Amino acid sequence: MSFIRDCWYCAGWSAGFGQALETRRMLGEDLVLFRGEDGRLRALEDTCPHRFLPLSMGRLVGNTVQCGYHGMTFDGSGACVRVPGQTNVPASARVRSYPVEERSGIVWVWMGDPARADTAKIFDLPEMHDPAWAMHHGDALDIRANYMAVAENLCDPAHVSFVHPTTLGNAASEDVPVETRREQGPTGEVIVTWRWIRDGEPIGFFKRFGGFTGHVDRWHYYYMHCPNIAAIDFGSAPTEAALPEGERNRGVRIWALHFLTPVDADRTVDYWMHIRNAATDVAGVEEQMDAMFRTAFDEDKEILEAVQARETALAARPGGAPRPLRIAIDLGPNLYRKAIDRLAAAEAAAGPG
Amino acid sequence: MSFIRDCWYCAGWSAGFGQALETRRMLGEDLVLFRGEDGRLRALEDTCPHRFLPLSMGRLVGNTVQCGYHGMTFDGSGACVRVPGQTNVPASARVRSYPVEERSGIVWVWMGDPARADTAKIFDLPEMHDPAWAMHHGDALDIRANYMAVAENLCDPAHVSFVHPTTLGNAASEDVPVETRREQGPTGEVIVTWRWIRDGEPIGFFKRFGGFTGHVDRWHYYYMHCPNIAAIDFGSAPTEAALPEGERNRGVRIWALHFLTPVDADRTVDYWMHIRNAATDVAGVEEQMDAMFRTAFDEDKEILEAVQARETALAARPGGAPRPLRIAIDLGPNLYRKAIDRLAAAEAAAGPG
Amino acid sequence: MSFIRDCWYCAGWSAGFGQALETRRMLGEDLVLFRGEDGRLRALEDTCPHRFLPLSMGRLVGNTVQCGYHGMTFDGSGACVRVPGQTNVPASARVRSYPVEERSGIVWVWMGDPARADTAKIFDLPEMHDPAWAMHHGDALDIRANYMAVAENLCDPAHVSFVHPTTLGNAASEDVPVETRREQGPTGEVIVTWRWIRDGEPIGFFKRFGGFTGHVDRWHYYYMHCPNIAAIDFGSAPTEAALPEGERNRGVRIWALHFLTPVDADRTVDYWMHIRNAATDVAGVEEQMDAMFRTAFDEDKEILEAVQARETALAARPGGAPRPLRIAIDLGPNLYRKAIDRLAAAEAAAGPG
Repeated sequence: MSFIRDCWYCAGWSAGFGQALETRRMLGEDLVLFRGEDGRLRALEDTCPHRFLPLSMGRLVGNTVQCGYHGMTFDGSGACVRVPGQTNVPASARVRSYPVEERSGIVWVWMGDPARADTAKIFDLPEMHDPAWAMHHGDALDIRANYMAVAENLCDPAHVSFVHPTTLGNAASEDVPVETRREQGPTGEVIVTWRWIRDGEPIGFFKRFGGFTGHVDRWHYYYMHCPNIAAIDFGSAPTEAALPEGERNRGVRIWALHFLTPVDADRTVDYWMHIRNAATDVAGVEEQMDAMFRTAFDEDKEILEAVQARETALAARPGGAPRPLRIAIDLGPNLYRKAIDRLAAAEAAAGPG
Repeated sequence: MSFIRDCWYCAGWSAGFGQALETRRMLGEDLVLFRGEDGRLRALEDTCPHRFLPLSMGRLVGNTVQCGYHGMTFDGSGACVRVPGQTNVPASARVRSYPVEERSGIVWVWMGDPARADTAKIFDLPEMHDPAWAMHHGDALDIRANYMAVAENLCDPAHVSFVHPTTLGNAASEDVPVETRREQGPTGEVIVTWRWIRDGEPIGFFKRFGGFTGHVDRWHYYYMHCPNIAAIDFGSAPTEAALPEGERNRGVRIWALHFLTPVDADRTVDYWMHIRNAATDVAGVEEQMDAMFRTAFDEDKEILEAVQARETALAARPGGAPRPLRIAIDLGPNLYRKAIDRLAAAEAAAGPG
Repeated sequence: MSFIRDCWYCAGWSAGFGQALETRRMLGEDLVLFRGEDGRLRALEDTCPHRFLPLSMGRLVGNTVQCGYHGMTFDGSGACVRVPGQTNVPASARVRSYPVEERSGIVWVWMGDPARADTAKIFDLPEMHDPAWAMHHGDALDIRANYMAVAENLCDPAHVSFVHPTTLGNAASEDVPVETRREQGPTGEVIVTWRWIRDGEPIGFFKRFGGFTGHVDRWHYYYMHCPNIAAIDFGSAPTEAALPEGERNRGVRIWALHFLTPVDADRTVDYWMHIRNAATDVAGVEEQMDAMFRTAFDEDKEILEAVQARETALAARPGGAPRPLRIAIDLGPNLYRKAIDRLAAAEAAAGPG
């Protein structure tokens, strides 16, 4: 397993970065992020090249960071600008810097070759800029599981019936098959998995936020932007409206966004937020939605961590882990794995940059 | 070190298994046990073959268990009986099932080849069925030590003088040699180690439960049924009775049973219970005995875990652990190790089944 | 990385050893130390050769230690003097014993070949025996870092400006270069690193204990007695006194002693104490100094542990840890590393003894 490095990864929300040293571990690397006195956000390798103390244990000085051991100081490009006790600064005294961009209140870090960083590849959704929709930055979920297992869960509308029976799923959908297709998006390949559950009891989420009383048609569209972003379009409309696929905006519709950032091989942070076309100006609704999302995502976390732990235990047995059984709903996850293989091969061919 | 698999291992007391999913890790394998609505106990591998979620995180449905991730459902034979979202069930969709038997309120699981499971090899003791004796199911002791070290401690009457000075031993026995013999029992080889401490102060246990005031003759017979069961016959009688070996029932006599179940190479559960010929109908005596046994067995646990930790540390040193010194009392443990070697060789010759 | 074994290592203060079994892990070995009923201190390998139970879990019997499992008993030479249950004692029944010496209230253990133990090599300082000076045994600091990293920190007066800004350093010294020399002491090679900060604000320590109000000349001399002892001479005098280097006793002067004892490759205990020429008979001053030293040494501990953790993480990356950048202040640490290499090579040539 290797990470896809030539990619923008979410490091949190803009509001979370003030004039302070923040740390993130991403793709097995330790970063220190800081907003300088000029307001600009910078990201450096969080290791002083002298004694390897994390720079985040030092202090922010203007637009630079000063090491807490011997005072070596680095600017946002990673260049050393001061070595106390000597007048010359060795040319080799520098740390790696990472391209950082902020868009729609989201902080993105390019983890690959800086020369290949392309801001056109930053994730965007028209609804983020549409005044008819409300956007709310949610929270971060720390999951002790490999990012691909987390991503596969986001190519898999079938799990909601069993994992989220009180919030995002219910028994009505247990036996409804999942449809799957691939498409090309601006940031690369997208795996789409979806299904409509027609004429059923509304799920907990829409009972609460849609005000539905009778039966509804409900949809779940999972757009997995490989390798790291899931945009989930889900919603409901009264069954009597007989809503066609293309007119989902007439129903109560929500985009739940998941930005996956691998921490290590067995740990992933899922930064999640939402955009909605209903109750856009109702006070308190965002906190209530966050609470319901938290309930549901904690259910995912419990499942994913248990799977990771069991896989690790099985792999340690003589002979290793067995091959997993594949069933009909696995088409999306299978396509995702293949897409990752292609991305990894392309990166290997491109070289480290 | 390998486990002896063709053997019935204790998984607990019958009373501990209701209509719920219970987990046990035994011999490095994870099991889910459940009593179906028909009252019968079943044991399956605790891993869904699809995504490897522990089945124990799902739910009991009648006589089957339903996975908590995508609803795949398995019966007690390990066969899959439902895959939500599709009508066919792949023939390869099954999990391993384990033979389970209940006898005298004890749950036994056969960990080896099911074709070789033989209920005639389940441990039994005539006193379990004798109305003159009282049987009491005790508790489980979780020990961070290899099962062989725990078993050796149960071929070793000498340790009680130093490890259990207030309960099961005292200074009177410090220098009394231990006798040792091998015999063949219905479940296989038995290592017997024993000694009589004649004309001495009673130990704490019999001061409390035997009502002795003067000197007693005391015996400890440890019957180690290889590989996993120790039946310890210990008791006392007034010294003036001059009790011969064959008439121990005339004294106050207790069978302390230890059913050892390896969890992993460095962890063992000791399910312990007792049968006694005295105070058979005194209210509260079983709780009092449990309390005294707990004191003593916690002393064993402390010693065994310290030994395991030290062995592990020594093995990590360059050159590895030294050879342990052997002294006179080690004859029983030595015979036990050889018996285990023979069992392991026999299993290797028989193949995995 | 290997330890230097032919060396006296501190195991604590004499006052800390009564008639009880004390444990120490030193250079990857587990020791039990005990003061016998004759008042003499003994050090043995803390492992019974029979079942490997730590002897420290047994009990002190006169001048011997009795194992808590089967009662095997060992004297201070490591010889077994009793095996309960048998009359003969096998000649091979013995544990390793370590030479122990007590000097000036400090307990020293020789970890190498006992035949090479030379009490003339025990660390001493004339001020320890001078009535004009007060000696105070401090405490022990447990640091999760390799002893060489701890020692390098004690060849490095430059770090105090950034790590200890409120106690042992301040901004006045940030850019003052460090001087370095090697000398030969009675226990071996000594790396000396030092600097004078002339005409500056007094540091917190001397504001508190020197009563200075105006500018001072301040010195820090770090004498690193390879491999394991740092004697730090630091002090201050009013700038108008224009104190020459050789007359430091006219100022307020303190020897802070650090006796480093490696526990394992990634853990070190720093036993620290001090000797002072000021406030020698002021009540409570030692507790106040201890408190200030604790503040400062906890700052070192935080830095050293973070460096160790980061080094370990870097070493685990593909390609391993990068080469650390070297700057001007690293001359002392570099000389220390070379001295350790020479000591290790000499020991390898001398053989295990």
